[in-house]
Amino acid sequence: MVSTRTAPGISDEPVEDSTATRPLSKEELRAIDAYWRASNYLSVGQIYLLDNPLLKEPLKREHIKPRLLGHWGTSPGLNMLYAHLNRVIKRDDLNMIYVIGPGHGGPSLVAHAYMEGTYSEVYPNISQDAEGMKRLFKQFSFPGGIPSHVAPETPGSIHEGGELGYALSHAYGAAFDNPDLIVACIVGDGEAETGPLATGWHGNKFLNPARDGCVLPILHLNGYKIANPCFLARIPRDELQKFFEGMGYAPYFVEGRDPAAVHQQLAGVLDAVVAEIKRIWTDARTNGKVMRPNWPMIVLRTPKGWTCPEEIDGKKCEDYWRSHQVPMGDMDNPSHIRILEDWMKSYRPEEFFDGNGRLKPELAALAPVGRRRMSDNPHANGGLLLRDLKMPDFRDYAVAVPSPGATTAESARVMGAFLRDVMRLNLEAKNFRLFSPDENNSNRWQDVLEVTNRCYMAEIYPEDDHLAPDGRVMEVLSEHQCQGWLEGYLLTGRHGFFSCYEAFIHIIDSMFNQHAKWLKVCNEIAWRRPIASLNYFLSSHVWRQDHNGFSHQDPGFIDHVVNKKADVIRVYLPPDANTLLSVTDHCLRSRNYINVVVAGKQPAPQWLTMDEAIKHCSEGLGIWEWASNDKGSEPDVVMACCGDVPTLETLAAVELIRDHLPDLKVRVINVVNLMKLQPSEEHPHGLSNRDFDALFTKDKPIIFAFHGYPWLIHRLTYRRTNHKNLHVRGYKEEGTTTTPFDMVVLNDLDRFHLVEDVIDRLPQLGARAAYFKQAIHEKLIEHRQHIQKYGDDLPAISGWKWGLKGAAGKPRGTSTEEDNI
Amino acid sequence: MVSTRTAPGISDEPVEDSTATRPLSKEELRAIDAYWRASNYLSVGQIYLLDNPLLKEPLKREHIKPRLLGHWGTSPGLNMLYAHLNRVIKRDDLNMIYVIGPGHGGPSLVAHAYMEGTYSEVYPNISQDAEGMKRLFKQFSFPGGIPSHVAPETPGSIHEGGELGYALSHAYGAAFDNPDLIVACIVGDGEAETGPLATGWHGNKFLNPARDGCVLPILHLNGYKIANPCFLARIPRDELQKFFEGMGYAPYFVEGRDPAAVHQQLAGVLDAVVAEIKRIWTDARTNGKVMRPNWPMIVLRTPKGWTCPEEIDGKKCEDYWRSHQVPMGDMDNPSHIRILEDWMKSYRPEEFFDGNGRLKPELAALAPVGRRRMSDNPHANGGLLLRDLKMPDFRDYAVAVPSPGATTAESARVMGAFLRDVMRLNLEAKNFRLFSPDENNSNRWQDVLEVTNRCYMAEIYPEDDHLAPDGRVMEVLSEHQCQGWLEGYLLTGRHGFFSCYEAFIHIIDSMFNQHAKWLKVCNEIAWRRPIASLNYFLSSHVWRQDHNGFSHQDPGFIDHVVNKKADVIRVYLPPDANTLLSVTDHCLRSRNYINVVVAGKQPAPQWLTMDEAIKHCSEGLGIWEWASNDKGSEPDVVMACCGDVPTLETLAAVELIRDHLPDLKVRVINVVNLMKLQPSEEHPHGLSNRDFDALFTKDKPIIFAFHGYPWLIHRLTYRRTNHKNLHVRGYKEEGTTTTPFDMVVLNDLDRFHLVEDVIDRLPQLGARAAYFKQAIHEKLIEHRQHIQKYGDDLPAISGWKWGLKGAAGKPRGTSTEEDNI
Ligand SMILES: Cc1ncc(C[n+]2csc(CCOP(=O)(O)OP(=O)(O)O)c2C)c(N)n1
Ligand SMILES: Cc1ncc(C[n+]2csc(CCOP(=O)(O)OP(=O)(O)O)c2C)c(N)n1
Ligand SMILES: [Mg+2]
Ligand SMILES: [Mg+2]
Repeated sequence: MVSTRTAPGISDEPVEDSTATRPLSKEELRAIDAYWRASNYLSVGQIYLLDNPLLKEPLKREHIKPRLLGHWGTSPGLNMLYAHLNRVIKRDDLNMIYVIGPGHGGPSLVAHAYMEGTYSEVYPNISQDAEGMKRLFKQFSFPGGIPSHVAPETPGSIHEGGELGYALSHAYGAAFDNPDLIVACIVGDGEAETGPLATGWHGNKFLNPARDGCVLPILHLNGYKIANPCFLARIPRDELQKFFEGMGYAPYFVEGRDPAAVHQQLAGVLDAVVAEIKRIWTDARTNGKVMRPNWPMIVLRTPKGWTCPEEIDGKKCEDYWRSHQVPMGDMDNPSHIRILEDWMKSYRPEEFFDGNGRLKPELAALAPVGRRRMSDNPHANGGLLLRDLKMPDFRDYAVAVPSPGATTAESARVMGAFLRDVMRLNLEAKNFRLFSPDENNSNRWQDVLEVTNRCYMAEIYPEDDHLAPDGRVMEVLSEHQCQGWLEGYLLTGRHGFFSCYEAFIHIIDSMFNQHAKWLKVCNEIAWRRPIASLNYFLSSHVWRQDHNGFSHQDPGFIDHVVNKKADVIRVYLPPDANTLLSVTDHCLRSRNYINVVVAGKQPAPQWLTMDEAIKHCSEGLGIWEWASNDKGSEPDVVMACCGDVPTLETLAAVELIRDHLPDLKVRVINVVNLMKLQPSEEHPHGLSNRDFDALFTKDKPIIFAFHGYPWLIHRLTYRRTNHKNLHVRGYKEEGTTTTPFDMVVLNDLDRFHLVEDVIDRLPQLGARAAYFKQAIHEKLIEHRQHIQKYGDDLPAISGWKWGLKGAAGKPRGTSTEEDNI
Repeated sequence: MVSTRTAPGISDEPVEDSTATRPLSKEELRAIDAYWRASNYLSVGQIYLLDNPLLKEPLKREHIKPRLLGHWGTSPGLNMLYAHLNRVIKRDDLNMIYVIGPGHGGPSLVAHAYMEGTYSEVYPNISQDAEGMKRLFKQFSFPGGIPSHVAPETPGSIHEGGELGYALSHAYGAAFDNPDLIVACIVGDGEAETGPLATGWHGNKFLNPARDGCVLPILHLNGYKIANPCFLARIPRDELQKFFEGMGYAPYFVEGRDPAAVHQQLAGVLDAVVAEIKRIWTDARTNGKVMRPNWPMIVLRTPKGWTCPEEIDGKKCEDYWRSHQVPMGDMDNPSHIRILEDWMKSYRPEEFFDGNGRLKPELAALAPVGRRRMSDNPHANGGLLLRDLKMPDFRDYAVAVPSPGATTAESARVMGAFLRDVMRLNLEAKNFRLFSPDENNSNRWQDVLEVTNRCYMAEIYPEDDHLAPDGRVMEVLSEHQCQGWLEGYLLTGRHGFFSCYEAFIHIIDSMFNQHAKWLKVCNEIAWRRPIASLNYFLSSHVWRQDHNGFSHQDPGFIDHVVNKKADVIRVYLPPDANTLLSVTDHCLRSRNYINVVVAGKQPAPQWLTMDEAIKHCSEGLGIWEWASNDKGSEPDVVMACCGDVPTLETLAAVELIRDHLPDLKVRVINVVNLMKLQPSEEHPHGLSNRDFDALFTKDKPIIFAFHGYPWLIHRLTYRRTNHKNLHVRGYKEEGTTTTPFDMVVLNDLDRFHLVEDVIDRLPQLGARAAYFKQAIHEKLIEHRQHIQKYGDDLPAISGWKWGLKGAAGKPRGTSTEEDNI
């Protein structure tokens, strides 16, 4: 029934000759093993104990937590690696951080931070003595204590445990532009099955050994995940080897179940690997060989749950999935208490702790000191290293707008010119990168390539377009990689911007979630210093995916974003280029937020001068006086808009209304900062009810043209006085490959439907309304007939300009041909 | 500056000896090449032409579309493959479908469906003559026509173009349980950079050659994506080879730019590959060798945009990214018209079309006939093959509920027992599978393993737990794979259920989007037959991720889901096991929906007998009379709840209120079908306003305890009469590792806060309120003190039972230790 191939079980034969030598002296071996046992002891203690941390008295039920929460299985392997990394850090004064993919192994990282003293420095209550150890144990996974997973609370971490798959992307992001940093990155063999991790390996095609640091991936091949074996542990060794060689790595294998043997192997491999990393760096930097090397990586094949009881109640535990979480429950069973006690004593705590629970000095001396401790490396608290960007004056990039609507520009492209100069000014500081899934130019940031290149470490051909090992535009066709790299880059104290098609940003919904949660928690941790905001530029948005069609149309990322805590998220929909410039500047200066900016890339009318734009953006929303005619009186209707295309349609509707119903008082409000709509108690940017009522009136109809799903506006405003008169148009999931104007028509967001919405809500129009409505309907029929015949919008539509009173200007091109330029 | 490795440019030397023979006779070569040229001609025609399809007159501006939308670059390669797959299908009577990763190559699939006649059968207007060809050209990417990408409208497709990355997962899903089906799956070299695709290759560890069909992956190594080279095209050949060998495939390389040479190579490779597939099948089926074979795969390295002009306006186009979309725009430029005409004529249309645009009979004869045509294969219109599941009577799995709250059960586990028997009854039909990212048992479906196993084709050890090549539980640690496999399985006419932790289902937000869009469009296409619904079971939900903590807490998938079209989505939150059974039964019988079911797995009180549950589920929501005391009068307050934990808290609150304020009239409403809350105009399940008002009153306070984000309830109900009195509690993004009850307390969703909410909204309570509130506050303080000391909930909380009037029962365990059983 079963494959005839043989995946080798774990053996203790040293693998290949990599460890033919035994690098550790007897004394070193004894010490490092004691260090490892200490961390194992502390890991088990965190999971189980409430009291009696040193097991000085016989273990009793009341010393044990009533609810057992935590993950043991991965911890011994993580502990082993940590101890050995310490050895080479200390010996070679390495600058290293530790990214743990299986971040459910929270106890491990906490144990090491505690052993090397950082933990007590950061949390003085958790002192390095018996009392502190008791608190350390109790707080773990305990109400009012710390989470079970690696979390922002954990010193030394930039990578939260929980959702698996992003370890390598975070690690590469951290290594970029940190030329002497080694990011040791543990990949769970289960985690390795996820999509994001599977492509994460390819970060090596973008890591420049002259400029960047190094990622040292360590596959933690402990064979199991929650309840299943991992397939990488069940394929033949040569297949696994080819797998890594095929991804451009030089794999080193360490394998065994006898700790002494594994210590020797691992030490030998780490010596080899560190030497190799140094050789690669030197080659690239001194000898000028900037080529993609075969970076080393390690496969560590040891038993899951290593050193816990082999069997519990007759059931296999060590080297099996059963050791994944808490290997043994039901601690009301006295025999379980004995098993736990024996298990913990098997580490021989008396050999590593003094009588008061302090790590013996000769062992404590094994850890690096100060900032070299992985738990205290400043790269893992990036805010410490963060420097402001040098910023050009965004006003210098202003589009001239002699009168509203007079000029046409591509907002995204104007933003690109600004970003080009941000890039230029910070080239030397090496702390700014742009990220995009092969859409940098499609999203119109191509001007950036005037001052830098796209980063590439695979083969480059002469005909290639702005591709170089030292580029700062990161293009890979993986939204996951873009997001993960950017997070890693920001978390280690640098700056960036992610440009993406609006619809496909949903690919990283869950990564966004985790980053937003990270930021929320960091806001509550004093020692975590603020980092640069994570900035999204979403273009090629729902309204201008007329060429790619339905699969590319979805404005729902904003809906997803606003579910997260108000104090970490910001959403901007600038209506034109100058507002986009102002918002971009703001985003690049902000800290600890996630900023979402949505704006188009196609030629579109420009509304505000730079001065007006700045004011409008600082207010976040406001009346556009030049488009309104209600000054000095109450409006009959409020026409609100948010997003560039809805703004265009609203203004075209307003003009129609003013032409046909000149006595109607119309107030036009544009919203650029979406969070302004929320009550001030819900979001720091929220308008007070008084201000909201003043703007939107207490009783007049509001026709709101929105970029996204209409119900989002309702959700943000349902508590407002005039909510009952609010009528929202937006995307209602109707789309296909068609013309730009037809996209808005299909969703009733076009000028004609907006006019009709106004008419329907103003009974006072009486008989005049009927004629006007009929004219409107005829326009829509004309539109449909025209596009079905010519495949393009009516010139009167695509050439419409504010203030020309229907005498259309030169049609703005609706072409999308530039999309892959 | 550049890597010193050499990725070979495309050469015409046959690769290795795989094609040392020249399998095609001169005549065969001529014919297949003509067939290919015809499809290229039709692809270009779709992108450019409005008229003059056969180029009988000189090409003029007015024959060309005003807006050019579509993707050329990938099309010639797709066309080449299609023609050659036809050859082996026809020769060997193969059962094959074609999954196109780079589904932006819509013109290609349409061209072939047209050439083999399916297109005209399905869309008679697009006839196989000059007039039909004109329509074929015009409709493409044209208003009122068809999308630019492969879409539901495209015959033969189960895989929409658009969001890249899911081709292999879909392909494997289609191949499962289709023992004679070959799924040819084109993977774009850009697409191959995505995470989901990167793990998609590993589908081969789950494909059983005895039971399942075969996936034939074809990496379309055309070197470029939108604006960048692809890294797989820029690594050395041996690295690429190892990459595929390391993933367990036997790669075959085809490479060249001279069509004749490539035809011969490709034919030779396909002969070899088909023979190999048959050998593998035979080995497994006849010789009983059920092992994981080295399935063949093909690397096709040919120029992007192959056969378009090499340069246009002096810029490299063929074999470059510039050919990705429309290689040449600005058709007002007369020289461009000439270039287009020459380009199209270079295919020599007179050799393959007769005077009236019909494919010459000797070429048409190259295509397979009837159902063997890939465009007409019933597996690509799975509804044709769909058979109902044999269903056990779900009533037989009922939990006995002598009185509300008297029994405790794990809802998910009860569901698992029912699914076990669904599985059992359909084992023979081989049309039902379960999918989970290593969470099948954690989500309590382990009973299913009594009748089947987990599917595994990698090495199996004796100690493994229910792992076998013929298992029907698909466990891989990739939500993307689970989703993609399930979609592929459903789209080819089978049934399934996906169980996932609630928070991490966001990983497939965007895949959900695309499937929902697919279904929406299918509802408008008569020839697409309904398929089984995509069913999600979300457990280990936000309220019971107290052990894993904040990173595992997010109930927002529902918010995401309800953005999609009402006629394809359904959301259920059954409050107990019997309602969950009823809902599960319903989901498995439904068609063309996406059903989201959210329910817990921990021991919890059971409320309804099976009869009551059935009634409750058919209504979707209703008053729980036994918990209410307002019968015969107007209630003072409505206590509504949706979700199992909110229901528990609401009932506990109701009991407190009835104890302390016995004269207060409380109405308890439970909602199981979330869509009932929407207005009937918005969702087919929506309650009429009249019914809503009758239930929720027009003016009484409503305290609504909701499983998810509270604003979702507002969004669904903002138009209801009594919305102003609606007060919703739900998850507001507060959580960590703590106790279950503390999770609800942190979010103000607990019984005490709910009572306080009631008190605050009933001014008539007057002075009595103050005492009651104080008592409530003391309870909360007591709770906090207790958990911080003991780490577990107060027995009075965890043991609370309806009807015991505060005399708590035996505490329900809050243990999570079973999570990896
Ligand atoms: C994306 C995602 N899906 C599912 C889970 C649930 N989960 C938690 S741990 C785990 C197994 C991890 O196995 P592995 O990566 O091998 O870690 P280790 O064996 O070192 O514990 C799973 C599936 C998760 N955390 N993230
Ligand atoms: C997930 C995702 N991100 C981005 C895009 C935008 N996009 C459309 S086509 C394309 C390039 C595809 O390249 P490749 O897979 O090599 O296809 P081919 O060269 O055959 O056209 C990109 C990035 C997309 N469709 N999907
Ligand atoms: Mg593992
Ligand atoms: Mg390509």
